[in-house]
Amino acid sequence: MTDFTPIGIVRSPFRTAGAPPFQSSFSRVEGTVEVFPEYQEGLASIGGFSHLILLSHFDRAERRALTELPLSDGQAEHGIFATRHYNRPNPIGISYVSLTRVEGGLLHVTGMDLLDGTPVLDIKPYIPEFDSIPHAVTGWVSAKHIERIRETSILAENALSADRRGL
Amino acid sequence: MTDFTPIGIVRSPFRTAGAPPFQSSFSRVEGTVEVFPEYQEGLASIGGFSHLILLSHFDRAERRALTELPLSDGQAEHGIFATRHYNRPNPIGISYVSLTRVEGGLLHVTGMDLLDGTPVLDIKPYIPEFDSIPHAVTGWVSAKHIERIRETSILAENALSADRRGL
Repeated sequence: MTDFTPIGIVRSPFRTAGAPPFQSSFSRVEGTVEVFPEYQEGLASIGGFSHLILLSHFDRAERRALTELPLSDGQAEHGIFATRHYNRPNPIGISYVSLTRVEGGLLHVTGMDLLDGTPVLDIKPYIPEFDSIPHAVTGWVSAKHIERIRETSILAENALSADRRGL
Repeated sequence: MTDFTPIGIVRSPFRTAGAPPFQSSFSRVEGTVEVFPEYQEGLASIGGFSHLILLSHFDRAERRALTELPLSDGQAEHGIFATRHYNRPNPIGISYVSLTRVEGGLLHVTGMDLLDGTPVLDIKPYIPEFDSIPHAVTGWVSAKHIERIRETSILAENALSADRRGL
């Protein structure tokens, strides 16, 4: 067993399971990361980075599954380590958000794909030479699956806009 | 506090702190991930992916720092969340490894940058449409810093080869 203590919390407009876009890369939704006072010293010189990696705890994942119907494909189960589903043995999420402004311990970001109140375990700067592998081959995940994820993310944003207009 | 239980363990030729390359992207070193029997069902259909994301626990990180001298730059401290140093409040590492072969619960990979025995918390498939941001801007991290990381990684590999030859 390994104990981690959250260093901050996500503030997002998404409050119910299933509401957020499936991937931060397809989200233009704004949100904030509130870094707790005792960790704010760790934010020094973060302002120069355009993108941050958030490691978060999917604290409202319902179960810890070994196989799962992927969010993009209700037809066939895959091993959980071959999917990005949140029902994982260790429900740790990776989000890549665009940093728009730092205001003390508050990081204003776009690309939100997390539920409001999600605990943040770590923040790392995104560095393309370390993190970007444009040529990676994606196994069972086809262009069609990715397009479905993109479409679902747009629907999630539209639902949010409708909700804000009281529709 | 959030409890996680490792789902596997890294086998690598690196046994002492400071020996591994600083980033998996600059490493050509081979290693394996041994997924524990009770989690091996989660590997179904992982074989088609060329690259995997490993989330690991830097279990031999010495301290949990809020500022740190980056590995690429001994001159100036930066906030820990603006660096990729392993001495983090929650010492969780991200490695991107190339998957070469799956043998039951054993994943043969290249791009090893972890110490032998490092606990693995999660494995996710790398999907460029989700994970690759080639245009991200890297703040204080200059081309010179990245070049230094690359050079240090080559030195780490050379040291390993020399060690194997008994030099």
